[in-house]
Amino acid sequence: MRVCLTVAYEGTNYHGWQVQPNGITIESVLNQALSDLLGEPIAVTGASRTDAGVHSMGNVAVFDTDTRIPAEKISYALNQRLPLDIVVQESKEVAADFHPRRCESRKTYEYRILNRRFRDPLRRYDTYFYYYDLDVERMRQAALYLVGEHDFRSFCSVHTCAETTVRTVYTLDVDKAGDVISIRICGNGFLYNMVRIIAGTLIQVGSGMIAPEQVKDILELRERAAAGPTAPACGLTMLGIVF
Amino acid sequence: MRVCLTVAYEGTNYHGWQVQPNGITIESVLNQALSDLLGEPIAVTGASRTDAGVHSMGNVAVFDTDTRIPAEKISYALNQRLPLDIVVQESKEVAADFHPRRCESRKTYEYRILNRRFRDPLRRYDTYFYYYDLDVERMRQAALYLVGEHDFRSFCSVHTCAETTVRTVYTLDVDKAGDVISIRICGNGFLYNMVRIIAGTLIQVGSGMIAPEQVKDILELRERAAAGPTAPACGLTMLGIVF
Repeated sequence: MRVCLTVAYEGTNYHGWQVQPNGITIESVLNQALSDLLGEPIAVTGASRTDAGVHSMGNVAVFDTDTRIPAEKISYALNQRLPLDIVVQESKEVAADFHPRRCESRKTYEYRILNRRFRDPLRRYDTYFYYYDLDVERMRQAALYLVGEHDFRSFCSVHTCAETTVRTVYTLDVDKAGDVISIRICGNGFLYNMVRIIAGTLIQVGSGMIAPEQVKDILELRERAAAGPTAPACGLTMLGIVF
Repeated sequence: MRVCLTVAYEGTNYHGWQVQPNGITIESVLNQALSDLLGEPIAVTGASRTDAGVHSMGNVAVFDTDTRIPAEKISYALNQRLPLDIVVQESKEVAADFHPRRCESRKTYEYRILNRRFRDPLRRYDTYFYYYDLDVERMRQAALYLVGEHDFRSFCSVHTCAETTVRTVYTLDVDKAGDVISIRICGNGFLYNMVRIIAGTLIQVGSGMIAPEQVKDILELRERAAAGPTAPACGLTMLGIVF
């Protein structure tokens, strides 16, 4: 059967999602725990190959197995074998042809900025600390230019291998709760570093370095150098995927 | 001059606040960083001697110094020398006779319970994970019996050295936001393990093990064995003190 896992993790201690020769990754830890549990070699296919240091509440991984353990029980058995910073939230059987990257989906990411005078030791894992006051209203105005179908080449790492840089952003909301500013973005897919470059650019807008209207020009220039810096990975959490 | 620090910390990696022979404590780290910074031996006096693993957003520490560094600048210089899990939020000069344990104060603590089916790796530091459904309304009813001036002997570790076990609880609120239940308690002082025993007892009420009205009987028995277990330290955060 084909099994689908919903995987939450704190990415601080990992070299990202994808298996790589030098460094422990979320995918490699999952593969090892699943292979040990099920007694057969398992290699999962992930929906989002998150970067080093990025967190998730709901990444999706799929694999095939001959096990007789019911699909929905695998999560409990697997969590016994996983480190504390990776927790499977759900396991279920899916159609044999389900592939998490080859079907339409809506992904939601959240970038969190801790905007206050001093660091908060309890929020240092999943927020990016930013000292200077950010104007949320300006960030909201700028965000509006990014909603819709656009060529996001300006908001994409030059190291991308994507065939096309056109993506659709369904929603892009900027909210403030206490001293945490959240940039929440939902789209049909994201380019390499796209959410972090959008966050870095909105931070420049919020701090007054660039005008909200300039984001429209940045988008039209289709050039990475036009946008703001890539915001640090620690502030980014993948919230979930709807297929 | 006498300087007062507001100190935030994640307590996970420390043997509590108070200096002790075996193990690193918040107080010992502060003393060393201050002594190095100011070039004179410093020993702070803390307001709350939090237990091992307990966190704080606003504990208070006081010390005397001959330094010419302005009091309000000490926080910035000190944070450069502190580990990432201890962050001074404010430093200011106070009256030469101010003592954080020998004056009237209101302390606020929050106990956070993550009440869901699976652990959340991003909330594992500052919440206590509890799998079974908790009924917040029952917990609120039980909490009402604890508000006011009472002899809290039942909610105090038998290892206490307190002269009296009478304390006043001004407010005790139970709230739920998403899957986090917060027990927020404000009082004129707390006995050894008092907040964690109150949390452990309210969890028993919320899970249906004991009735809300039983908390009145537990209080009147004045006996530690009558109350629920001491809830784990990781869920407890000291929020602040008002003098």
